[in-house]
Amino acid sequence: MANEQFLNTIKKNNLIRKKEKVLLGISGGPDSIYLLYQFIGIRDEFKLNLTCVHFNHALREESGQEESFVKDLCKKLKVKCLSEKKNVGKFFDGDSLEQTARNLRFDFFLKCARERKAKKIALAHHKDDLIETVLMRLIRGSGLKGLRGFSVDSRYRSLQVVRPLIDTTKEEILIWLKKNKIDYCEDKSNFEDIFLRNRIRLKLLPMLKEINPAISQTIHTTAKTIAVDYEFIYEMAQKAFLSLKKRETRKKIYLDLKKIKALPPALFNNVIRIAIENLQGHTRRLEMRHIEEISDMARSRPLHSVVNIPNILVTKDDASLIIQSLLL
Amino acid sequence: MANEQFLNTIKKNNLIRKKEKVLLGISGGPDSIYLLYQFIGIRDEFKLNLTCVHFNHALREESGQEESFVKDLCKKLKVKCLSEKKNVGKFFDGDSLEQTARNLRFDFFLKCARERKAKKIALAHHKDDLIETVLMRLIRGSGLKGLRGFSVDSRYRSLQVVRPLIDTTKEEILIWLKKNKIDYCEDKSNFEDIFLRNRIRLKLLPMLKEINPAISQTIHTTAKTIAVDYEFIYEMAQKAFLSLKKRETRKKIYLDLKKIKALPPALFNNVIRIAIENLQGHTRRLEMRHIEEISDMARSRPLHSVVNIPNILVTKDDASLIIQSLLL
Repeated sequence: MANEQFLNTIKKNNLIRKKEKVLLGISGGPDSIYLLYQFIGIRDEFKLNLTCVHFNHALREESGQEESFVKDLCKKLKVKCLSEKKNVGKFFDGDSLEQTARNLRFDFFLKCARERKAKKIALAHHKDDLIETVLMRLIRGSGLKGLRGFSVDSRYRSLQVVRPLIDTTKEEILIWLKKNKIDYCEDKSNFEDIFLRNRIRLKLLPMLKEINPAISQTIHTTAKTIAVDYEFIYEMAQKAFLSLKKRETRKKIYLDLKKIKALPPALFNNVIRIAIENLQGHTRRLEMRHIEEISDMARSRPLHSVVNIPNILVTKDDASLIIQSLLL
Repeated sequence: MANEQFLNTIKKNNLIRKKEKVLLGISGGPDSIYLLYQFIGIRDEFKLNLTCVHFNHALREESGQEESFVKDLCKKLKVKCLSEKKNVGKFFDGDSLEQTARNLRFDFFLKCARERKAKKIALAHHKDDLIETVLMRLIRGSGLKGLRGFSVDSRYRSLQVVRPLIDTTKEEILIWLKKNKIDYCEDKSNFEDIFLRNRIRLKLLPMLKEINPAISQTIHTTAKTIAVDYEFIYEMAQKAFLSLKKRETRKKIYLDLKKIKALPPALFNNVIRIAIENLQGHTRRLEMRHIEEISDMARSRPLHSVVNIPNILVTKDDASLIIQSLLL
């Protein structure tokens, strides 16, 4: 039987339809094993076609055992299982191991989706993950995009990504697993800044709870409203970007200079982000001060001025703001 | 001589023009005394017409001494001084003493502005105030409006409110005062949750600094970008509100039901906020869950459903969402 909280989240957000094909991202840790059992609990009622997808990052000794554990469990539960092993360290571009791993993992998810003709994947991020993620990003610095955490229902390219555990706490997960005597692999992150996360979990959150005992719910609500606001700005910025874009090559985007200068600052900032994301696939090393620099250049510096930010060069001629990728 | 940081902030944000009339909000504490001396430092160069405005909240024993201190100092520095004493406790409406005091203080500022034909007031909020304010609001729960903290240049009705110390830390202020052997009244807040602020200052911030030594700058930047995003959404919502509003009486606002249901959630939320702010002058007790309730009612509950939130009743007929103030 699936947990009531799980059913509520699915229902409230309309996450799962009957007879759907759903991929489940299963690492083997407690959160994803809980997710798997919840889906097993509704499989018959919803007539679901489930496939577990397991990506073996080959970064730790136990990686092989975890893969076997997931495969064996799937056999036992009569769920299809797709897995792939890739040595993430070999693909590391020197920027962020976590991000490299995430990209490879999602590439694998997309491949599985094509193979299984599925359009949806469920991931096991839960309520504490969300709160820790929001606090981490606040501490490291982030705009709305980061501060919204992750949402219950989002998109990665052609794939709909749902997170049905977003209202469930880690404690609830562990209690349920214990009560139902269910085995799982030990919780070990391959990449994430365990030091920072532990710091937040063991020191910061307890202190915040002393001040506001409902801090988890508060941050949860804040992240949700920020997500709504971000989506609105992002959509408006997308439209603005398309109407400003004069030309796009593999390495350069030309934006109408006069029109971009007339944008409200919130749209200006996000159009620049979208352009850079289009060129290099991410905006990880883009900071607010870079965007301020670009804004100042666009508005008040002479023609052919140049702003140099990590891997990106921005300049202007008399008609265009030109954003250029410096990567090969 | 004014401090370089102070001059930079003024210049970068274009806060002060030559020959301007400027009111200075002076409580007598170190921050406002520093502000006063900085303005004295640029008075001749900018040919400024300065007036100190001091509001005596009459909530503490020392209130009278502080008023005298400010008046005497102004005489010494040859600055006009307007002051008013009002027993804030008597006006307290049971909602928030701090908010009551703020309203009375700003009423006094507006009166001074009319009297002196000034359009601008400078307040002494500094960088640490901003960071503490943002963290307080994060802990208590807040949307973009609260999380942006306060800005260097904003508006209160007809008055332009500037905060030239926004880039200056408390430490820099105290060092400057000490170095220049300048007296001030002791720093005592009348209303603010001193317990929470001290908690943040003495425990939370040091912990955050251990994780990110540049946390102050990080939160400062975050607040600035949030302010930009909020302003954009707020302006769009203002426009939407005006186009949706069918009728407004002293107690009721009728919004076009069909149109409001078609708004993106970020605009829906802010249109509701604006309507409630128009009716009762503030949205202090309005929480996200109230707005979600109204949204659900507007979208999917039967005609004449009612949502009851603090001091406000929301209902709908076949053409309108009707927001009604329950206060006399």
